[in-house]
Amino acid sequence: MPVDGKPIVAGKPVEGGAGSLQAVDPATGEEFGPAFGLVDARQIEDATRAAEAAFDVFRAQAPDERASFLRRVADNIEAIGPELTARAVRESGLPQARLEGERARTVGQLRMFADVVAQGDALQARIDPALPDRKPAPRPDLRLAHVPVGPVVVFGASNFPLAFSTAGGDTASALAAGCPVVVKAHNAHPGTAELVGQAVAKAVADSGLPGGVFSLLFGEGNAIGQALVADPRIKAVGFTGSRAGGLALMRTAAARPEPIPVFAEMSSTNPVVVLPGALAGDAVEDLAAAYVGSLTLGSGQFCTNPGLVFVPSSPQGDRFVAAAGRLVAEAVGQTMLTGPIARAFEAGVEALAAEPGVETVARGTGGSGPNGPAPGLFTAGLASLTANPRLQEEVFGAAGLVVRYPSAEALAEALEAMEGQLTATLHADSGSPADVEDARLLIPVLERRVGRIVFGGWPTGVEVAHAMVHGGPFPATSDPRGTSVGSLAVHRFLRPVSYQGVPDALLPPALREANPWNLNRRVEGAVVPGGEQ
Amino acid sequence: MPVDGKPIVAGKPVEGGAGSLQAVDPATGEEFGPAFGLVDARQIEDATRAAEAAFDVFRAQAPDERASFLRRVADNIEAIGPELTARAVRESGLPQARLEGERARTVGQLRMFADVVAQGDALQARIDPALPDRKPAPRPDLRLAHVPVGPVVVFGASNFPLAFSTAGGDTASALAAGCPVVVKAHNAHPGTAELVGQAVAKAVADSGLPGGVFSLLFGEGNAIGQALVADPRIKAVGFTGSRAGGLALMRTAAARPEPIPVFAEMSSTNPVVVLPGALAGDAVEDLAAAYVGSLTLGSGQFCTNPGLVFVPSSPQGDRFVAAAGRLVAEAVGQTMLTGPIARAFEAGVEALAAEPGVETVARGTGGSGPNGPAPGLFTAGLASLTANPRLQEEVFGAAGLVVRYPSAEALAEALEAMEGQLTATLHADSGSPADVEDARLLIPVLERRVGRIVFGGWPTGVEVAHAMVHGGPFPATSDPRGTSVGSLAVHRFLRPVSYQGVPDALLPPALREANPWNLNRRVEGAVVPGGEQ
Repeated sequence: MPVDGKPIVAGKPVEGGAGSLQAVDPATGEEFGPAFGLVDARQIEDATRAAEAAFDVFRAQAPDERASFLRRVADNIEAIGPELTARAVRESGLPQARLEGERARTVGQLRMFADVVAQGDALQARIDPALPDRKPAPRPDLRLAHVPVGPVVVFGASNFPLAFSTAGGDTASALAAGCPVVVKAHNAHPGTAELVGQAVAKAVADSGLPGGVFSLLFGEGNAIGQALVADPRIKAVGFTGSRAGGLALMRTAAARPEPIPVFAEMSSTNPVVVLPGALAGDAVEDLAAAYVGSLTLGSGQFCTNPGLVFVPSSPQGDRFVAAAGRLVAEAVGQTMLTGPIARAFEAGVEALAAEPGVETVARGTGGSGPNGPAPGLFTAGLASLTANPRLQEEVFGAAGLVVRYPSAEALAEALEAMEGQLTATLHADSGSPADVEDARLLIPVLERRVGRIVFGGWPTGVEVAHAMVHGGPFPATSDPRGTSVGSLAVHRFLRPVSYQGVPDALLPPALREANPWNLNRRVEGAVVPGGEQ
Repeated sequence: MPVDGKPIVAGKPVEGGAGSLQAVDPATGEEFGPAFGLVDARQIEDATRAAEAAFDVFRAQAPDERASFLRRVADNIEAIGPELTARAVRESGLPQARLEGERARTVGQLRMFADVVAQGDALQARIDPALPDRKPAPRPDLRLAHVPVGPVVVFGASNFPLAFSTAGGDTASALAAGCPVVVKAHNAHPGTAELVGQAVAKAVADSGLPGGVFSLLFGEGNAIGQALVADPRIKAVGFTGSRAGGLALMRTAAARPEPIPVFAEMSSTNPVVVLPGALAGDAVEDLAAAYVGSLTLGSGQFCTNPGLVFVPSSPQGDRFVAAAGRLVAEAVGQTMLTGPIARAFEAGVEALAAEPGVETVARGTGGSGPNGPAPGLFTAGLASLTANPRLQEEVFGAAGLVVRYPSAEALAEALEAMEGQLTATLHADSGSPADVEDARLLIPVLERRVGRIVFGGWPTGVEVAHAMVHGGPFPATSDPRGTSVGSLAVHRFLRPVSYQGVPDALLPPALREANPWNLNRRVEGAVVPGGEQ
């Protein structure tokens, strides 16, 4: 299907009722068609009403049906082929290869959730059989399974037009849980959103599901987001974006007559700690090169971009900074996602450079287009960082601050004062007793404020896996008990329900005595494999 | 140890710095000693600072160490013996046998969490081994385990001086997770709180743990609660109490610079649906007797008290109401927990009786003391309930509203308009096709708004079990994804952390290759039993 600028309400394309917007090519700054129809208040409500109406049918699916549906979504996205990546390249300014990789990731993510759903452990079925002879009172039969929370709103992210947007991790995990999804498309890539939205809507229809299982809405400004989060039919929110945006949604969700959870992934500087052993000899040059590679990857527009690097105050530390500075000076700005993002980067870099105690190590060269600002490398002492919380704020894009520290103890103390982060990274020589001792001091500090600890690598590149956490304490996310990447993400959208003394025929299939879904179930607290029941 | 009126700050009894309060015997309305010292702002901060300082040591315990600690707490509470129940009887007005049962439940609950901790599945360890040959890029080794969220504040509940208070379900599950706990004692049972607090503090000391693992604070008014929830060192809150109280804590927690989760269990009318088949013949008399038994149990002061019963508009329905009315008329008011609670009950009953469409079926007799108000039974038509949200508000105590419904369809529509609840109960003849059809219509409606569905029983009597949910959608609780009773409760206080490429020696024991804790771990998504690794 072509990009025709139509929002999808309850599975069907509609004419927008509230004006239109156009996509902008960030490489040139020029608008291009078609016009995307913006939804009005009635269309928003149509979408949430349809989501609510579809909920019972959708959540009643058997695991294999839900898995088939998710695989259909994956197949349909795969089938769009080059049209999708071409559109995404033009809308995002990201390179073709990156978007092909991102499409593969998006499709793989949907299939992983299909496998998770089919396997069934996410329902966490539990059975405590009746104890009719227990004294002083008998115990009734108790059974527990998880049910989806209800319709979910997902906000597409600017920096991952595929993997964190219309059918990205939030949508995939919410659908896997059995929650209808209303997506607010990111205005930076409306055509990409529409193409993916068409693929999802087709899978909904081909699976015989009600159209309300999926809607894709276009809208301008904050009003549409606020309306969606305030809508009483919505029961949870997935968001990846700015701290200001996430906080606004959190406030709205908390102020509802019925407050709802918001899973917002907001900002992170992803501190990297380089211990002395990692800088030994000429390794320092490779490490600096790897750092600049991670810092400038995708124009620095990853949630896990290494914004802060802690390097010892030592001659080898000086060599690291010098080497990184040479590479940043040679780097050319790549097109950022949007004009406003590029301008925010420039403003952020200027503000950072002007902070007391911050020195500019190097600036690269601006790119050829209007939105490819020059990468930047800055440095400061640990005392400056501790004294000035602004140095800990994320500058979204390819700007790094190297903080020099006198000792691991001083560094630990400074890290204790830092906010929550998505990731923390350690570079150390695991054969060096001194490094290992420092690492043992620092790891507990980092564990308390991050969702992922990386050793000897770089935080960019988030694997879609069972053991991945893309989350972390506030303000990295709004709820550190969740992850937006990896199979654990489905649990954000599930809640437990207990059934006491319910006759077998009225129990959900997950809990029936015959175990028709062949689930692994926890009986009296111990897991009994599906095949053995 | 005697009750000496001392708050416990970081494991040690201290003199309160801000005045004192006395316990009141609700059976007589008289104060009795000793005076309980109220903590000042510095002492609150001493407790939270000590909790923060104790966190890393406490959370580093091996599962068997944590389990031993929890069992010590249980043993110590058991060892207090009759002194504890005698004090609790005098402070709460609840009968001796009930408090003996509640002590057994409290002790059993701690031992269940000890077993859960020792078993280790709550850590949800996951391993995705490195794939060095994967194309286009190798996958690093990824490992995930859950860590405790940090220091937790628990508010003691008035209605369960033992099982939902100082060492009740919230405290037990937070300690099981590895979170230090600061308890705000409920002022209705300060001596009970102190005795239990001493038992916990002794277990902390005997386990070689830092005193900051546990504090027990006395304070008056809302200020202490607000101060504790606003304290930056606190990372989660457990609360059982009134809706107004829970909402106030939620607001404070959401307005913090770092918002934190509040697990508040607030209010519920626990709707009971009686289908026609359950009223057949003389069964109606037994059902009415069971209803009144559940309604008046413990002076109606259970979170799961059946405040709303839906009965068909039919001659047998009339018979149910008449039979229940006779029993309520014969019932004598039992002492409620406090004078203010008894007066709130009287005010609530008067307000309910005055609502349009509500008729008083029966009032019992007031008890002999000042705080034993007469139970009450009221009735209304379904249309009145639907038209007037005040009829759905909980009247805490032994007051029931029987709502007469014309058809299951009309009932389903009315239930759709109800708020979230802890429980919903169905009485039906599972051999009656008509009842089964109605049940199939109603169960999905109830599933969407409750945490537990009871069939053929009564919601009072919450089993401490693996398959129990004592939770539910707002306003029953603040977060329907948790439960405050049963082994699943521990998950409220855990969050996932992922370790990428971390050398074995620096990994937490739960994730080391040798699996020293013998955990069941999910490898590439499939559980590998601890014995097989």
